[in-house]
Amino acid sequence: MQYLESQIHEECGVLGVYGIENARDLIYYGLHALQHRGQEGVGIVTVDKDHKMHRVKGMGLVTEVLNSENMRPLEGDIAIGHVLYSTAKAAGPDNLQPFLFHHHTGDFAIAHNGNLVNSNELTRYLEEQGSIFQSTSDSELLAHLIKMENASKIRVNVIIEALNKIEGAFTFLVMTKDKLYCCRDKYGFRPLSIARLGDGYVVASETCAFEVTGAKYIRDVEPGEIVVIDKNGLNSYHYSMFKHHYMCAMEYIYFSRPDSDIEGCNVHAFRKETGKQLYKEAPVNADIVIGVPDSSLSAAIGYAEASGIPYEIGLIKSRYVGRSFIQPSLELREKGVRMKLSAVPSIVRDRSVVLIDDSIVRGTTSKRIVRLLREAGAKEVHVRIASPEMKNPCFYGVDIPTYKELISQHYDLEGLRQFIDSDSLAFLSKEALYTATNRTELCTACFSGDYPTQLYSSLDDEA
Amino acid sequence: MQYLESQIHEECGVLGVYGIENARDLIYYGLHALQHRGQEGVGIVTVDKDHKMHRVKGMGLVTEVLNSENMRPLEGDIAIGHVLYSTAKAAGPDNLQPFLFHHHTGDFAIAHNGNLVNSNELTRYLEEQGSIFQSTSDSELLAHLIKMENASKIRVNVIIEALNKIEGAFTFLVMTKDKLYCCRDKYGFRPLSIARLGDGYVVASETCAFEVTGAKYIRDVEPGEIVVIDKNGLNSYHYSMFKHHYMCAMEYIYFSRPDSDIEGCNVHAFRKETGKQLYKEAPVNADIVIGVPDSSLSAAIGYAEASGIPYEIGLIKSRYVGRSFIQPSLELREKGVRMKLSAVPSIVRDRSVVLIDDSIVRGTTSKRIVRLLREAGAKEVHVRIASPEMKNPCFYGVDIPTYKELISQHYDLEGLRQFIDSDSLAFLSKEALYTATNRTELCTACFSGDYPTQLYSSLDDEA
Amino acid sequence: MQYLESQIHEECGVLGVYGIENARDLIYYGLHALQHRGQEGVGIVTVDKDHKMHRVKGMGLVTEVLNSENMRPLEGDIAIGHVLYSTAKAAGPDNLQPFLFHHHTGDFAIAHNGNLVNSNELTRYLEEQGSIFQSTSDSELLAHLIKMENASKIRVNVIIEALNKIEGAFTFLVMTKDKLYCCRDKYGFRPLSIARLGDGYVVASETCAFEVTGAKYIRDVEPGEIVVIDKNGLNSYHYSMFKHHYMCAMEYIYFSRPDSDIEGCNVHAFRKETGKQLYKEAPVNADIVIGVPDSSLSAAIGYAEASGIPYEIGLIKSRYVGRSFIQPSLELREKGVRMKLSAVPSIVRDRSVVLIDDSIVRGTTSKRIVRLLREAGAKEVHVRIASPEMKNPCFYGVDIPTYKELISQHYDLEGLRQFIDSDSLAFLSKEALYTATNRTELCTACFSGDYPTQLYSSLDDEA
Amino acid sequence: MQYLESQIHEECGVLGVYGIENARDLIYYGLHALQHRGQEGVGIVTVDKDHKMHRVKGMGLVTEVLNSENMRPLEGDIAIGHVLYSTAKAAGPDNLQPFLFHHHTGDFAIAHNGNLVNSNELTRYLEEQGSIFQSTSDSELLAHLIKMENASKIRVNVIIEALNKIEGAFTFLVMTKDKLYCCRDKYGFRPLSIARLGDGYVVASETCAFEVTGAKYIRDVEPGEIVVIDKNGLNSYHYSMFKHHYMCAMEYIYFSRPDSDIEGCNVHAFRKETGKQLYKEAPVNADIVIGVPDSSLSAAIGYAEASGIPYEIGLIKSRYVGRSFIQPSLELREKGVRMKLSAVPSIVRDRSVVLIDDSIVRGTTSKRIVRLLREAGAKEVHVRIASPEMKNPCFYGVDIPTYKELISQHYDLEGLRQFIDSDSLAFLSKEALYTATNRTELCTACFSGDYPTQLYSSLDDEA
Repeated sequence: MQYLESQIHEECGVLGVYGIENARDLIYYGLHALQHRGQEGVGIVTVDKDHKMHRVKGMGLVTEVLNSENMRPLEGDIAIGHVLYSTAKAAGPDNLQPFLFHHHTGDFAIAHNGNLVNSNELTRYLEEQGSIFQSTSDSELLAHLIKMENASKIRVNVIIEALNKIEGAFTFLVMTKDKLYCCRDKYGFRPLSIARLGDGYVVASETCAFEVTGAKYIRDVEPGEIVVIDKNGLNSYHYSMFKHHYMCAMEYIYFSRPDSDIEGCNVHAFRKETGKQLYKEAPVNADIVIGVPDSSLSAAIGYAEASGIPYEIGLIKSRYVGRSFIQPSLELREKGVRMKLSAVPSIVRDRSVVLIDDSIVRGTTSKRIVRLLREAGAKEVHVRIASPEMKNPCFYGVDIPTYKELISQHYDLEGLRQFIDSDSLAFLSKEALYTATNRTELCTACFSGDYPTQLYSSLDDEA
Repeated sequence: MQYLESQIHEECGVLGVYGIENARDLIYYGLHALQHRGQEGVGIVTVDKDHKMHRVKGMGLVTEVLNSENMRPLEGDIAIGHVLYSTAKAAGPDNLQPFLFHHHTGDFAIAHNGNLVNSNELTRYLEEQGSIFQSTSDSELLAHLIKMENASKIRVNVIIEALNKIEGAFTFLVMTKDKLYCCRDKYGFRPLSIARLGDGYVVASETCAFEVTGAKYIRDVEPGEIVVIDKNGLNSYHYSMFKHHYMCAMEYIYFSRPDSDIEGCNVHAFRKETGKQLYKEAPVNADIVIGVPDSSLSAAIGYAEASGIPYEIGLIKSRYVGRSFIQPSLELREKGVRMKLSAVPSIVRDRSVVLIDDSIVRGTTSKRIVRLLREAGAKEVHVRIASPEMKNPCFYGVDIPTYKELISQHYDLEGLRQFIDSDSLAFLSKEALYTATNRTELCTACFSGDYPTQLYSSLDDEA
Repeated sequence: MQYLESQIHEECGVLGVYGIENARDLIYYGLHALQHRGQEGVGIVTVDKDHKMHRVKGMGLVTEVLNSENMRPLEGDIAIGHVLYSTAKAAGPDNLQPFLFHHHTGDFAIAHNGNLVNSNELTRYLEEQGSIFQSTSDSELLAHLIKMENASKIRVNVIIEALNKIEGAFTFLVMTKDKLYCCRDKYGFRPLSIARLGDGYVVASETCAFEVTGAKYIRDVEPGEIVVIDKNGLNSYHYSMFKHHYMCAMEYIYFSRPDSDIEGCNVHAFRKETGKQLYKEAPVNADIVIGVPDSSLSAAIGYAEASGIPYEIGLIKSRYVGRSFIQPSLELREKGVRMKLSAVPSIVRDRSVVLIDDSIVRGTTSKRIVRLLREAGAKEVHVRIASPEMKNPCFYGVDIPTYKELISQHYDLEGLRQFIDSDSLAFLSKEALYTATNRTELCTACFSGDYPTQLYSSLDDEA
Repeated sequence: MQYLESQIHEECGVLGVYGIENARDLIYYGLHALQHRGQEGVGIVTVDKDHKMHRVKGMGLVTEVLNSENMRPLEGDIAIGHVLYSTAKAAGPDNLQPFLFHHHTGDFAIAHNGNLVNSNELTRYLEEQGSIFQSTSDSELLAHLIKMENASKIRVNVIIEALNKIEGAFTFLVMTKDKLYCCRDKYGFRPLSIARLGDGYVVASETCAFEVTGAKYIRDVEPGEIVVIDKNGLNSYHYSMFKHHYMCAMEYIYFSRPDSDIEGCNVHAFRKETGKQLYKEAPVNADIVIGVPDSSLSAAIGYAEASGIPYEIGLIKSRYVGRSFIQPSLELREKGVRMKLSAVPSIVRDRSVVLIDDSIVRGTTSKRIVRLLREAGAKEVHVRIASPEMKNPCFYGVDIPTYKELISQHYDLEGLRQFIDSDSLAFLSKEALYTATNRTELCTACFSGDYPTQLYSSLDDEA
C-alpha cells in the first residue's frame, strides 16, 4: 500500500537539470513525478547567467508550495530540486533541501537522497574543526566537507576527497555556478539516472521524472562514480575502486513508481514477475485475486496470470484523502468509518480471496485489511506477500521501524498468520527477488540482516 | 478516464443522514466518498434539536472547504449534504447546494442531483406568480413550488403536487425541522439508495458512501416514489403511477465508483463484464491489454481475462495533480511534458497493445493517448471502447458536449479510427449493456437518441 | 474609540458607480475607504454591456476578500458595492450584500444600509403572498416588494410603491441593467451623497469614498427622494411628501471618518467643536488633555484649544491588531498584557489628565482606560464625554446594546463616575450637538428616547 | 510618515524573555508591539526544560506568520524573537532570524538589530578559516565567531573576544540552553532595554514592548556591555573600554513608537519639543498646523502649541491598507485615486497651512503631499521639517537611499522648496536635536556626514 497508508518510507528524491532554458519548469514537473518519494517538503535552487542562485522551498506538496508567482524569480538554465521525506533524524523546515551556501570561491547548492551511517562521527569531527550546523541533514555535512579554503583548488578533487570520508547510502547533486556534480555511493544503494533533452541533461532519482519532461534516458550514474555535467557535456570520475551493485530491493518492491526503470528493469514488470513467482512458490485454490492498491496491484496481476484465477478490484483506495482530511473520531472509527481503503462487498462476498500485498511491517494494516474483507463477506482470505519477511531496520535511508516494532521479529509464520487472522499466509523467497530483477547483487538487509556496510553508531541509535 | 482528464461529467451527488448524533461527521465522510460526482463545491445543512438550521458551503473539494472549525456549528442529528458539479446552466457560488429557506411555516433545505427539462417553463411560470430567483438551480425552483402559504398544509402533499409539475431526471432531498423527504424521478434516471446505521438512516446517490460510514444498504428509492424519513421510520408515497427504470447507462459505464452497486449490480463487475463482451464482439490478436486509468481498468481486466492476453499497467495517472497544478507552457507541452497521464515505455515498447477506454467524446483525448503509446514504442494500438458510439447530448444531468462537439456525429467508424490514428477500433454494442446489467430498461439516449421524456426547450438551448 | 475596540457599530456602507469604465476598480478603492462602516464582509456586483451581472462576495476585509484575480470577471461600467457589519438580526454569509436577483423582466441587484422597523410584519405579509426568503436581510425584503410581474411596468413606480410600504432608516441602491436607483428614507436618518467623476457618477454612504476615487461631491440624496441615474444623467423622484432631516447624531460623533462631510458639515470640525463646547460646559484644571484614539482625537484637540491645556498623545492604539490576532490568555491579561491600547507612562506620570472619549456604552472600556492611566502614573483623571449620556437602544441600524446593557440606565452621573473610577466626569449637552452641527433636526433617540418613527415589533425584540 | 509610505527603514527589532513560563506568549505580544521595526518577517526560538530548542519563522507580519497551532511546540521559559526588515544586504527567507545552531557544546540561537561595517572583511576571514555561510546576515557571522571548539571554554569569554572583532552598530541577543546574552555595540547606536516581570526578565529594542507585557523597565544595556541573564539574575561584562552614547537620532525622529522611551527620553515628548523648537527657528503666520500621520503628529502638536496656531487633522491615513492591497492602475492614479493618504478638503480649503513632516528623503512624497493639499484647496502650504537636511547614507542599519537618491544632495533649500512646490520650507537645526534629547552625544551622520566609526568597504558598496 503506497503513499498515505504506509508505514515505511523512502527518504527523498533528487532532480537536476543542466542547460535547458527555464530549468525551473522542468524541475517543477519532474519533482511532481517524484512526489511519492517525499511529501513533507519541496525545494528548488537555480543559477542564472550572472551566477546568482535563487531558491524557493517550503513544507508541503509540490502543488501546495510552488506556484507561478514564487517560481518566477527562479531564473537560469541549471537547477536542482528535492522532495523531502522527513525522518526522525532530519525533520522539519530546517532540513528542507536543496541547501544553498555562500562562499567567496563561489556559491553552491546541495541536495541528497539516502542516509550516511557515519554522520554522528563526521559531525563531531567537523565541529571540532570549527564547523557549526543549522540542520541535521547529511547535505549540510557534505557541504562542510567540500567547502574550499581558496579558489585555486579544483572542486571535483575536493568532492572526491569528501566522498571518501562518508559511508552509507546516498546520491548527491552538487550545483555550482556552471556545473552539476552527480554523485552515487560506491555500494550502489540508491538509484540516479541521466537523460538527455535537446542539448541539455536531466538527472533524477527515478526515471519516471524523465517521461514527464520528455527527456530520453541515456545511462545511470555508476556506484562510486561522479558524473560532472558542464558545457562540455558529461565527464566521469571514480572516487572509489570498491564498487558493488547493492541496489535497495525495496526500490523495486515498494517505493518506485511502476513506470520507472531501475537500472534497466521496469518496476511494474518486476512486480508482476514476483507475483508469478509467488504463485509458483505458494499456490492456492481460490475464486479471485485482489491486490492492495496501489503498489501491490502489479504483483496481483502476475499472480492472477500465473494461476488463471480471475483478477478483481476488491479494495478501493480513496483518491481525495489529503493533508487536510479530518480524521474520524474514535467513535466513528468503531462505527466503521474507513476513509482511505474500502472493500467491495459485491465482489468479495462468498468468495475465496487471494490477497496480494507487498510487505508486512507492523502487521496492523494487514490485520485490518483481512478484517475489512471478512466483514465484506469474503469466505476465505489467503494472504500472499510479494517480498520476504522484514526482520531488520534499514540504515540506508528507508524509514523502517525499529526491531521492536517489526512484527516478523515477534512471530513465526503461523503466529503471524494467526495475528492477521488470514486463512493462509506466505512470503516470497529472497531468491525470487534476484530472479525477478535478473541481478546477482541487491541490498536485502531488511530481510536478511546482512548489511553491506559497517554501521558505526547507527545501531546504538536504534537501541 | 475519470475525474480530471474528463470531458463528460455527472452533475452532483446528494447525501442525507437522519437520526444519527453529530450527523455532520457522517455527511463529511460520505461526501468525501461522493467527491468524484462533483468537485466544484460542497455544502452541508444540519438541523439542531431547537429546529435551527446551520449551513456551511464553499467552492472547492470537501477537504478544502470543510474543516473541524467551520463544521463545529453544524449541530444536530439530521443533515443533508451536496457535492456540486457546475454546469453551464448552474455555475458558480450562487448555485452551491443545499439551499436553505426561511419561512414562518418552518425553515427547510433542499439539495438535488440531475436536471429538469422544463425548468425554463417553470421559471417563467413562477416569476409570473410572483417568485424571484437568486440562482439558476433546479433546487431553488422546487423550493418555490413547495413553499406553503400557511402552516396548516401537509408538507408531503405539497411536495407530491410539486413533483407532478416537474419533468426530467432528478433526485431531491428536502429536509425540514424533523423530516427528510427523499424523492426520485418517475423514470428512474438517477440513483438514490437508503441504508441503515444503528437507529438512523443514510441516503445517498451512490452506495460507496455507505461503506465509509459503516451503514448497511437496505433498499433504493423507487422511481416516482417519495420516502419520508422521520421518527417513525420510513414512509413511502408514490407521486406518479408512471414508473420506469431508465437508469442512466453512463452511471455504470463511467460515473460511479467501482465499489458502488447500482440497483443491485456492482459497477466493477458490470465493467469487467463489458470488457468480456467487448472481446466477444471485437476480438484482436495482441501482446498486452491495457486500460485507461481509472474508470476503464475493470473493462480492461475483463477483456484480458476473456482473451487470455496478459493485462498490463501501460499507462500511469498522476495521483498528485490538483487544482493548484501549474499548466505546462505550450513550449513545454511540445517538448512532451505530460503530467496527468504517461505511458510506460518498457511495458509497451515493441508490443501490440489493446487499449480499453470507456468512451470517446471529442476524440482528442483518445488521439493523444494513442500517440503517447506510439511514442513509447508500441508496435500496434488497437482501441476498444466499452460503450457504444456517443452521438447525442444528455438533458438529464450529464454534461455531455453539444451535437457539434461529439466526434461520432462527424465520422463513421473508419473515419474515427483514422482521426485517433489507431490500428483498429471497435465499440461495444448497445445490447451488451443490457446483458451486462441484466436489465430490460436503461437510458441510452446519448447513444441512440431515444429520449425517454419530452424535451421542452432543452433542445433549443442546445442549438 | 473607533473600529476594533468598539461596542457600538454602524450597519454597513453602500457604494455605487455609474458610467465609469471598469467600475469595479473604483468600487474596490471606495469600499476600502468605507471599510470602517463594516468589517465582516464585502461584495460587488457589476453589469456588463451585454446586461449580464457579475458578483463577488465574501466574509472578511476588502483586502482579504477581493483580489485582482477574482475581480477580473467583474466587467462593466455600472456597479454597486457593500461592506457588511453583521448584526444579530442579519449575520453570516447568507446576508452578504449586494443581493442579486434573476428575473425574466431583467436581473437586478440591491444593497442597503440601515434598518427597517417593520421588517417582521413585512416578512410575514410577503410569505403569505407566496415569497420565501434565503436570508434575514432587509435587501431581500425590498427585492420581493419591487419584483415585477410583467415587463411592461415602469420600475421606478414599483419602487415608489415599495418604499411607501417600508418604515425605518435606510439607504438603498438598486441596480438594473442600465440604471442605478438611489433611495433614502423620508426621515433622513442615513446619509447618501452623490459625486461626479468625468461623465459618470459615484454614490456613497460617506464622502470619504469620493476623495479616494477623485470624484467631486455634487449633492446629497434628499430624505424621501429617489435619484435615478441613467444615460440621461440624474432624475429625481419623491416617494413621500413627509420629509425631515433627522440625521443620526452618532454619524457625526462616532461612525464617520473625520475627513467625511455629512450634509455639508465636516466630521473632524464637528468633533473639534464639541470638544470646545465640552470645555465651556465642563471646564477642569489639569496638566494635559488626551483623547482616546482614533475617534475622540478631534474632540480632545478642541478641548485643548479652548482650554489652553496642552494636547498630548497619552494613549497609543496598535495599528497591527487584526482578525488573526491571538487573544492573550486570562493569565497574561492579569499580568497586564494590553494589546490594542496602551498608556504612555512618561507622558501621563504625575500629571493631572483630561481624558476625552466620544461615548460611554457599557462602561467597561472607560473603566479600563482610567485604570490604564492610573497604572501609568496619572495623578488625576478627569473624564469628559463628547456626547450626551446614552440611555436607549437604536432601531435604525446602529448596533447599540439593549437597555439592560447600557450603563447609563443603571447609574446617575456620580454613580457612573464611581464605576469608572475617574476623579470627575461630565457629558456634553444635547443642545451642543445642534450647535456643533448647526442643524435644527437630528436623531438623538439613543440619548433622549424620542424615536422619530413608530417602532412596531422592534421593541418586543428588544425585550 | 511612518510605516507603509516610508522611504527609510529601521532594520529589525529584537526581544528576549528569561524565566517566564510560556515565554513564547510574551514574545508574541512583544513582537507585535515591535512590528513597526520590521514587517517582512518574524521568528521565535525557545528553549524547553530539556534544553531542546524550538523555532518558528516565516515571511510576513506577526499575525500572519504566527498562530496558536504553530506556536504550540514553542515550549520553555527562555525565548528570543525577531522582526525582520529586509535590506538589500540581507533580504529573503534565508535571513529570517533568530538563527539556530546545533553544536556538541550546546545549541544556541542568535538575533540582532543593526549593521556591521566590517562584515565583508569578516566573511572573507572566516571563510578562509573554513566557515561557509547560508545567509548574508550579521547574526550568522557572529555565530561563527562565537562557536566553541570544545565544551570546556567559557561562553562569555568567547563572546567578548568575538565582539572585539566586529565593528558597527548592533544589539545581539544570544540564547543558550540556560542563559541569555544581551550585547550592545560600544558606540551605543542601537537601543536595548531591560525590564523585570515577576521573577523573570524581558529585553527589547524598544520599551513599548514592555508596556504590552506588563514588564517594568529597569535599565538599558550600556554601550560596550554584555548583560548575561541566568538563574542568578543579571551579570554585567564590559568587552570594551571605549564607550560613547552615539544613539541614532533617527530612533527619536522617526523609527520608535511615540510611547517608547529611549534612554530615559520619551519619543512623543522629544518630537513635540522639536516641533516647538521648529517654531522658534522657523516661525510662520498661518491658519492651521497639520502633521503627516503618524510619525509627525507629535511635532505638529508642538508647533501648534508654541505658535498658538490651531492644530487640525488635515491629512488622513488609511488604516486598512495592507500587504494584499491592489495597487491602483496608472489610469486610476491619474484620476486621483489616493489610498494611503488623503487630504481633508473642508479642513484645508482656503486656509494657509503649516505642514509638519519628520524628514525629506527623495522629495517625491513631500511633493505629492503638497499637491494633495493644494488640490484640496489650501491657500498656502508652509513645509516645516522636524529634522535637519538628510544628506548622507547610513551604514549602521538604517535603510537610507544612496547619495544619489537623497534629494538634499541635489538642491539647496530654495531649490528644494521649488521642487516640492511649497510656499516656504525650513528644516530643524542639528543643535535642536541635542536640546530636545538633552544629550551631548548623538549619531547624526545622515545629516552631518560625521560617521563615528571607520567605514571599511561600506562606502565602496555605496558607490
